[in-house]
Amino acid sequence: MLNQQWLLAARPKGDIQDSDFRWNEAKLPPLGEGQVRARNLYLSLDPTNRVWMNEAASYLPAIPLGDVMRGGTIAIVEESRNPGFAPGDIVQGLGGWQTYWVGDGAGMSKTPRLPGGLPLTAYFGALGHIGFTAYFGLLDIGQPKPGETLVVSAAAGAVGSLVGQIGKIHGLRVVGIAGSDDKCRWIVDELGFDAAINYKTEDVGKALDRHCPNGIDIDFENVGGPIMDQVLMRINKFARVVLCGMISGYNSSKPQPGPYAFGNILMKSAKVQGFIVMDYGARFGEAAQAIIPWILQGKLKFKIDMVDGLHNAPAALRRLFDGSNTGKLLVKVSEE
Amino acid sequence: MLNQQWLLAARPKGDIQDSDFRWNEAKLPPLGEGQVRARNLYLSLDPTNRVWMNEAASYLPAIPLGDVMRGGTIAIVEESRNPGFAPGDIVQGLGGWQTYWVGDGAGMSKTPRLPGGLPLTAYFGALGHIGFTAYFGLLDIGQPKPGETLVVSAAAGAVGSLVGQIGKIHGLRVVGIAGSDDKCRWIVDELGFDAAINYKTEDVGKALDRHCPNGIDIDFENVGGPIMDQVLMRINKFARVVLCGMISGYNSSKPQPGPYAFGNILMKSAKVQGFIVMDYGARFGEAAQAIIPWILQGKLKFKIDMVDGLHNAPAALRRLFDGSNTGKLLVKVSEE
Repeated sequence: MLNQQWLLAARPKGDIQDSDFRWNEAKLPPLGEGQVRARNLYLSLDPTNRVWMNEAASYLPAIPLGDVMRGGTIAIVEESRNPGFAPGDIVQGLGGWQTYWVGDGAGMSKTPRLPGGLPLTAYFGALGHIGFTAYFGLLDIGQPKPGETLVVSAAAGAVGSLVGQIGKIHGLRVVGIAGSDDKCRWIVDELGFDAAINYKTEDVGKALDRHCPNGIDIDFENVGGPIMDQVLMRINKFARVVLCGMISGYNSSKPQPGPYAFGNILMKSAKVQGFIVMDYGARFGEAAQAIIPWILQGKLKFKIDMVDGLHNAPAALRRLFDGSNTGKLLVKVSEE
Repeated sequence: MLNQQWLLAARPKGDIQDSDFRWNEAKLPPLGEGQVRARNLYLSLDPTNRVWMNEAASYLPAIPLGDVMRGGTIAIVEESRNPGFAPGDIVQGLGGWQTYWVGDGAGMSKTPRLPGGLPLTAYFGALGHIGFTAYFGLLDIGQPKPGETLVVSAAAGAVGSLVGQIGKIHGLRVVGIAGSDDKCRWIVDELGFDAAINYKTEDVGKALDRHCPNGIDIDFENVGGPIMDQVLMRINKFARVVLCGMISGYNSSKPQPGPYAFGNILMKSAKVQGFIVMDYGARFGEAAQAIIPWILQGKLKFKIDMVDGLHNAPAALRRLFDGSNTGKLLVKVSEE
């Protein structure tokens, strides 16, 4: 049985290149005692993957060169010599960019199928890290109060699109920043944002002035860089900046300056707080209980951007950085 | 009766110049109904004064050109046509860079003389904004836990010297960064800091590595700029950055980049929070009740750097920015 894999061949310099990955087909040995073999169904592609490719450790160690590219997957157990797993079990974890995920069960989370006809892919959406990131980032760090103004960058992205909708559920004025007119229309017309700014065609500062007449109380920051600066220049006293990601800098090979408006954090007694969703691991159940009814009531919509075939994973990953995808990017590795 | 005053003559470009101020002697008219005349005793000089001189509003409006330079004073009432004040009352507030402070009583806080032989100048030290800044910044925003490591910049300054001592009282490892060997000796030998780094003669990064073997949990930031970057590069998971001041950028006439290590706030799930002490106005009494016993027990020492004569205020203010003062800088305007 062949395991098809993408290995990390080189550390990207700037933008990700095809040559940073190497395709590999490895023969799978028979399972050892205690081992489990699961077939990956869906592979999640996320901006943080780019951070993992760097030489420096982030919140996880760097991926060693030559290793299978790290990635989150949903998989189905096909063979088990481990009493904790049986064929047919659905598991989640860092199953990697490969067709088969073989391990001793550590890091393989058994996962129930969802009620109400919700597909397994929801675990990579509103009911997974994406949704929990939006939920805890906005509610726990952002501490929203009804009537406040929330600005979300990368607003048509997987996290951003949920953040804005949860903001509306909590009575906020929500302004999204996105990179195309189509994305802007989608978040306003379909998701109920109050306003959207196309940062590629509009003067972001002037548009923020127009759409945030009472200033900005919460910045849910996915982008960083010059757009973040425009937001920071307009924050209110006691504003909260939820630092979820700074994708604008991930492809840079040289050090990037922090925001020029950093001093405004001091002048406005504002808070900037970084987080990763695993900080809230103990509270995922609480989030799921809130989110499932929102989905079933139609208050929380979610778009999956599904790419077919593991072969296409490197090219698909690049789309996260050129602004061409809308919604949560997944690779379908094999059929359910 | 002549009121001697320093007026704001020009907005400084970069470093403060003598020509940014103009000396004025104005004849005081008789008091109107409801007015109070107090004679300024002590004028506080603080880094934030430089911010007030700029054209842009900060947490206070900009000082209009031609107006008396804004500054905090302690004064004694000499004449009153206001039933709320009597000759001999001690008052505090923004009495300005002038010998006489005339007003309708708004913003003049009546202030009791202190117990235990503590001088009135303590109100500009550990028992005033300086002390309350250190107290709430470290304890409320910094959330220290015994055994954690605290780094303080401008550690021999008015706020920094108190922050380090309050850190020791709370069981922290305290490392101070200051600008001379004398200052470094003072904070270690006299104030009990665990270590000090002279940023003018040492490699700050390497010294932090040596003195903070368990990383940095709290950064009490008074300086900003490259020194802050060295600290941010070494913060631990869930670190707190207490953003109290960024004096390194106050004299710049062009926009300054934020910290290059800004991304570490995200990677370490850290918090950066700005504040000004007035945010805690309702809790000053709580701070004073904690601080008075510390002073009387000798756990909290404080140095006053007293300059004689209002004439010398502009030159004295500049000393805050060239690193030549130690302790709280005051101008003695007139004799008690």
